[in-house]
This record gives sequence, C-alpha cells and structure tokens, in this order.
Amino acid sequence: MKIAVDAMGGDAPVNNIDGAIKALNETEIEILLVGEPRELEKLLHDKDYNKDKLSVIPSEGAILDTEQPAMAVKRKPNASINVCSGLVKKGIANGFISSGNSGATFASSAGILGMFEGLSKPCVGGPIFGFSPETLILDLGLNVDPTPKQLIDFAALGISQSKILYNIENPTVGLLSNGSESNKGNKLVKESFELFEKSSLNFFGNVEGHDIATGKVNVIVCDGFTGNIILKAIEGIGHVINQYIQENITDNKHEKIINSISKNTNIMREFGGGPVIGVNGIAIVAHGASSPTAVYNGIKTISWLSKKDYINQLKKELEEVRGSVNNE
Amino acid sequence: MKIAVDAMGGDAPVNNIDGAIKALNETEIEILLVGEPRELEKLLHDKDYNKDKLSVIPSEGAILDTEQPAMAVKRKPNASINVCSGLVKKGIANGFISSGNSGATFASSAGILGMFEGLSKPCVGGPIFGFSPETLILDLGLNVDPTPKQLIDFAALGISQSKILYNIENPTVGLLSNGSESNKGNKLVKESFELFEKSSLNFFGNVEGHDIATGKVNVIVCDGFTGNIILKAIEGIGHVINQYIQENITDNKHEKIINSISKNTNIMREFGGGPVIGVNGIAIVAHGASSPTAVYNGIKTISWLSKKDYINQLKKELEEVRGSVNNE
Repeated sequence: MKIAVDAMGGDAPVNNIDGAIKALNETEIEILLVGEPRELEKLLHDKDYNKDKLSVIPSEGAILDTEQPAMAVKRKPNASINVCSGLVKKGIANGFISSGNSGATFASSAGILGMFEGLSKPCVGGPIFGFSPETLILDLGLNVDPTPKQLIDFAALGISQSKILYNIENPTVGLLSNGSESNKGNKLVKESFELFEKSSLNFFGNVEGHDIATGKVNVIVCDGFTGNIILKAIEGIGHVINQYIQENITDNKHEKIINSISKNTNIMREFGGGPVIGVNGIAIVAHGASSPTAVYNGIKTISWLSKKDYINQLKKELEEVRGSVNNE
Repeated sequence: MKIAVDAMGGDAPVNNIDGAIKALNETEIEILLVGEPRELEKLLHDKDYNKDKLSVIPSEGAILDTEQPAMAVKRKPNASINVCSGLVKKGIANGFISSGNSGATFASSAGILGMFEGLSKPCVGGPIFGFSPETLILDLGLNVDPTPKQLIDFAALGISQSKILYNIENPTVGLLSNGSESNKGNKLVKESFELFEKSSLNFFGNVEGHDIATGKVNVIVCDGFTGNIILKAIEGIGHVINQYIQENITDNKHEKIINSISKNTNIMREFGGGPVIGVNGIAIVAHGASSPTAVYNGIKTISWLSKKDYINQLKKELEEVRGSVNNE
C-alpha cells in the first residue's frame, strides 16, 4: 500500500510530514511525500522514521489558497497536488491526501484522474451535523444547477458511501424539499421525484430542513447550491450558539458539553474532510488546518477505502441505480 | 382603528378571544371577532370587556390545518379567514390576524385583497435566527422558482420591512450564494447579481450560509425553496442542540440560557408569525399554537403597521427599486 501525501498543502507543511511519519511508524503503509525536495529535506532532517518506506517525489511550486483553482491547476502542471493526482493515475499510489486549496484538489483530481462516466464535476458529500452522524448529504458544493438525472447519481453515490462507511445495508434516501408532501418542491425536485420513485433506490420521499438534524433518512440529496448554504449555515449557527454558551456558562465542568456542540456543528473541520466523490481514484480533501493526527487519519482512511475497493463499489452502485431509471 | 380577529383559527379558539379581549381592555382598538356566532357567544359569555368595542361577525366553518389551502379557500367562501380578508378588502377593518392554516391565510389574502402589481404569490420573510435579530431573510416559502426580477422585488420588500420594523435607514442587501465572490452562485443568483448591482439597492454582494448567523447584512434575499429549507434546518438543529444541553446540564441556574437558545432557534414560534408580504392589506399569519399574549401582540402590530402606512410604504419602495432596474 503506497499513499501519496501532498506535503506542500495546508497551513503548515510540517503537519503533513508529521502525519506521514506517524503512518510510517504505526502502520505498514509506504509514503510518497510530494513537495519541493530542498524544503522537505530540511523538515525531515531530524525526524525519526523508517527511511526505506518513504520516498520524496519532487514537485515544483504549490497552489495557494488565494488562487483560482481550475486556472492554477492548469498553469502549474508540476505543482504538488498535480503530482499527487499523477501518482494515483499511473497506479503508483493507491490514493492521495491534500490539505491544500480544496478547489485545486477537486480540479486536479477531476482533470488528471478523470470523472466517472456521465458526471461533469466531482460531488461533495458527508454528514453535516454531528448529532446526526449517519445522515449523509450531497451534493454540498460543486454542482449548483444539477439535472434530475444528476440527483439520481448523487443518491447512488450517497448510498454507496453509506454502505461502505457505515455498514448500512439498504440506506434510505430522501429528496430535500420545502415540504414532505410529494407535490412540494421547486422545479428540479418536482421533476426528480418521479425519477426517484421509479428507481431501485430505497426512496423515502421528500424530507424537510429539520430532517437533517433528526436522522430520518440515511442519504439526503440536494443540489450543491442549497447543500453548500446549509452546510455553512449550520457552521455559523453552531458558532454563535457556542459563543453564547461560553459567555454565559463559565463553570469548567461544562467544558466537555461546549466542546461537543462546537465539534458537532463544524463537522468539516472536525472530520478533516473526505473523499472527492466521482473521480477515478481515491483523493482525500483535508482541511487546511489539519493537525498531524488528522493527516494520519486521512492516510489510514485511504488505505481502508483502497482495501474496500471503494472506487469500483461506487461505480457498481451508480450503474445499478442508473439502470433502474433507464430501463422502463 | 378596527381589527379583525379570526376566532376559529389555531389550536384553541379561546386564545384568540382572550387575546382580543386583552386588546379591548388595554388599548383603544375595536375588535371585529369573526367566527361561528353560537360558539363565540359561549366563549364570550363569562368574559369581562367593553361590549361597545366588540362586534361579532358571523362566518360559516373554518379551514382545517389538514386541508389543501388554495382549494379550501375557494370551497368555503364564508370561512372565517375569508370573512376576515373581506373585512379588510372593504375597508371595514384596518387589518386582520389569523392563527389558522397559514397556507389558507396566504391564499385568502392573496385572492381577496389581491397582490401588488407584478407579484404572483405572497412573500414570507423575517429574521430566522434570534441571535441575529435584525437580519431579515426572504423569501421563506411560497416562491420556490423565482426570476431575477422577483428577487429584486423580495429585496425591495425586505428593505422596506427593515426600515419600518427596525428603523434602519439604508439597509444593506445580500444575495444568498454558495460563495462570497461575485462569480459564485447557481443560474438564478448569477443572473440576479448584475441586476442587483445596477439597482438602487444598497447591495453588499453575495453572502454565504454562515452570514445568516452573523448579521453581515440587513436583508438576505433567496428563493423560497432554499429559504424554507434553511428556516427549518435551523429549527431542527436548535432543537437537537437544546435537547443535548438539557440532558447534560441539569443545574437549574442555567435554565435561562437553555430557554434563550430554544427561543432563538425557533423564531417563528417565538415571534408568532408576521405580515403576509405583497398583498393589498395588512394580514398577520400567527402560529397555530399562539397564546392569548401572542394574539394580543399581533393585534397591536396591525395597529402599529396601519399607523405607519405600511402597505403604501412597501409599494413605494417596490416602485423605486423596480424603477432603478428598468431605467438604463
């Protein structure tokens, strides 16, 4: 098992390196550390690890958080993130993790690894409210104007995630709408409802905003515009509630409770990201502020997903659900 | 000042009556109590109030919460909610309040009072997160697939609310999007951005989900599909966080804090509703579970809005903002 780590991405390159070294010391995984050789040499200099299991793969430059992702990915073909994608594409690495510019990770993995047939952009999905940890929502960002057939794809990818990540046998799927009745929804949801009903999906029907919090279904499907706004709304609301609690409950004994609310309303920071869904290879988008432990966890996730034959599982589910919609 | 009260609506007719009597006893307002005369007689029988200031206006039947609003409004022309709308339409009442089926209040007020020119459906708007009480969001429900010009209308109606309700001089307006950059958004937001920029609105630009919580702008504009989902998501998330706190913080001294979080994440229940925006008359949609105090507050709000010449203020703002978009 060889895993590529984008050493240049994120707020502190040393965190990527410390995470990688932790993996070297605690697992059988071999690491391909991608970055500027001279900088890496300096950072690795006094570290203690098995040198046979680490290879430094040179890259030129990194893509900054402030750069427009798609353009930067094209302009800097040898940037660390592109080298990582290339290693997976060539079959040298089983997957890669980057805590750099997340837009660049999407663009690079989509461009170099290629998308699943029929998808135009990667999909972002996962739980967004920690108190309902097994409710996945997708898409959360890139597909802002999807078609009904794309929503079917999101559902297939979501149930595949639900099966692989949470061992749920027959995940239920809901369409996020402005009412639970079957005639509620905007144009997209109304058009999609029929398609969902005739699909092989375990379709629950329309679900509402509050169902995100209650775990009513395993997979909630929505367009990436709505999903992204809700994700950020929860972060914002959680932050303000937490501030209020911190200002008003000052006894130390409640610290654990406050931390729990903070974690569960900012799940992206907490979980440190997730796989890019819909590209031909395992790519983990990690948070820019990832700690060494977060990077280490990401590396272990790649190893685990690779052993589970993650990419083929996703494709199989996609094919099956698409088939159920197309065969009438 | 004469205000019509739908006595039949809501979970408990007696709450409407007690709220109305409180208004009779504590203000100069005259009440037109709309409902089934025999039932009202029974409920009024032992109450203490100035009989000269209350008139019972007979209605036949009420629209149940389970009925499809638009159809029920047509099928029962003499239902209490329709009688209320009629009293306002004829200029007999300055406004009305109903805690009945809210869809029916929208349908009845739109059908009988009529919509502002150019609007097809009423708009729902208000603050949705109590810790950011001066940030209004609209639309929250009925207009699920609006056009860019309709979003301009929502903005105009929103700033008018912001001026009248909060005394804000030149309210800032943001377009809810999946990123703050001007090129972010779905098709609707991208098309609307330009229109917003050239309008007379004090346009801040795109705002994100977390800005709902932080009060970045005074008025956030979105389609009613997204708005409705966010409104309910906040209610759901607030409820779960609150349950978690209640289970884990059991000392009584924190009760106030818990109540405050509960209130501020379920603002619709707390504020007891708000005016139907975009119809030719003052109509207040109150929560089905409104207490007598909530009904009383609603009655006072109508009186206050009426004195402020609310409807004409809304129309003036709408005309001005529309003009700025159309005159190039």
